[in-house]
Amino acid sequence: MFDSGVGGLTVLRALIERIPGANYLYFGDTARLPYGSKSAATVAHYAVDAVRYLQDQGAELLVIACNTATALALDEIKRAASVPVIGVIEPGADAAAKASKKKHAVVIGTEATVASHAYRRALETRNVRVREKACPLFVPLVEEGWIEHPVTEQVAKIYLAEAFASDFGSPEVRHPDDAGAADVLLLGCTHYPLIKPLLRRVAPAHITIVDSAESTAEEVARQLKLMPRPRSDNSDEIAAPPQLKFFATDSAEKFRKMGTRFLGLPVENVVHVDLKE
Amino acid sequence: MFDSGVGGLTVLRALIERIPGANYLYFGDTARLPYGSKSAATVAHYAVDAVRYLQDQGAELLVIACNTATALALDEIKRAASVPVIGVIEPGADAAAKASKKKHAVVIGTEATVASHAYRRALETRNVRVREKACPLFVPLVEEGWIEHPVTEQVAKIYLAEAFASDFGSPEVRHPDDAGAADVLLLGCTHYPLIKPLLRRVAPAHITIVDSAESTAEEVARQLKLMPRPRSDNSDEIAAPPQLKFFATDSAEKFRKMGTRFLGLPVENVVHVDLKE
Repeated sequence: MFDSGVGGLTVLRALIERIPGANYLYFGDTARLPYGSKSAATVAHYAVDAVRYLQDQGAELLVIACNTATALALDEIKRAASVPVIGVIEPGADAAAKASKKKHAVVIGTEATVASHAYRRALETRNVRVREKACPLFVPLVEEGWIEHPVTEQVAKIYLAEAFASDFGSPEVRHPDDAGAADVLLLGCTHYPLIKPLLRRVAPAHITIVDSAESTAEEVARQLKLMPRPRSDNSDEIAAPPQLKFFATDSAEKFRKMGTRFLGLPVENVVHVDLKE
Repeated sequence: MFDSGVGGLTVLRALIERIPGANYLYFGDTARLPYGSKSAATVAHYAVDAVRYLQDQGAELLVIACNTATALALDEIKRAASVPVIGVIEPGADAAAKASKKKHAVVIGTEATVASHAYRRALETRNVRVREKACPLFVPLVEEGWIEHPVTEQVAKIYLAEAFASDFGSPEVRHPDDAGAADVLLLGCTHYPLIKPLLRRVAPAHITIVDSAESTAEEVARQLKLMPRPRSDNSDEIAAPPQLKFFATDSAEKFRKMGTRFLGLPVENVVHVDLKE
């Protein structure tokens, strides 16, 4: 599993709940985060470095647990990889399409994810209309630990009011991407599950919240079950606790401290990796 | 001039006001920002890359217009450079020491700058007592453009109330770094000059705000005036508009857009640089 930082640990957390007995390698490119404000070329270059490293470590299935990297670089990562690759966009779009009765969703994420329009394309293929809204302050607020905090609530009210306003631009014109009829809010960033309860309170009551971390874990679990198991495997091993190993390009200690909040489990066994080339 | 991003442009802006006729090269390491949450080793490695690049481009004086890089890597940069190097910490500390009658200051900055205690050391050498307070949300708020915004004001109230509280830890104990007597607030991050009017309103009225961007520009201007001028130089050239050239490791277009707000002048002539090695 790969992410620019600790956010992807919300996907790992959801995956461990489904498949506890697997062997997980998690790579956080913390020396080069955040990807959210970087260009597609930079993000692709970084992500390909990281997934090559994971393959060298023996990864048999790659999960791009990073919305920005999936949005900007999934095709390049697939070309560079020799094992199956799962991103977060398609599973999230699938779940949102299934949840939306009105076939109309609002997607929130980082600036880069929104600017890529990857969710828009994925949802329109599924006949779901989309409004996209960048929420660049949510990641630093979550990383500050202001999970249940009046400032975060005020920011969420501002962002969601804009996202769900019936006129996104001029008040004169009903836009084709009018969100007045949206009935789904898709969380297109792996940091956002931590403020899901707050977003639930702030979002209009009739809105269903779809979390792409959950949807991706669902899809990965499905594929893991299809994969051939090593001969030595038996049911005892499947019931064993997860084997977790973490790689971070910045300080291992910082990763350990911040990561525990996202994983909901102690983050140990962190190895510092230097990815210069 | 070097910074992790566009923040250092506030130093360049202050410098151009003082020495308009110079030839300025500005390097923003935007592909690898923010430095504020990274470890000392990572920051040093990045900064040394960038200053070598500026020297290859002909820089004769290096300004590390980045508090984090100065705090974590100034000695390493000086060792790697063959021209004079000026950081932001010493000029900021000088100005704060001069401004403080009670010899007691509060310093705000990013997490990495505060954790390095570089300002504390610089001020204590000048017999000024210090309280340091990390304000990690100010940079993303400024980059969101929420310069005069109720959320930024609320965040500033929370951070400054903590920074100036008479008890920084337990209410029982008067700490030796007690800030009740502080009469100076030192802005230890190059993004903060953009919210200086807001900070002025929120900070206690008796506090003098010292801006390390201004202090650094003052010191650089002093040194530029001491440097030998090329023989062809004459007073007409000194009165000419500044020659500005910008290098960015991420998208040149993004640098142009965001940079203009920080520089207060149109940012043109941006070259994308790839610093892999």
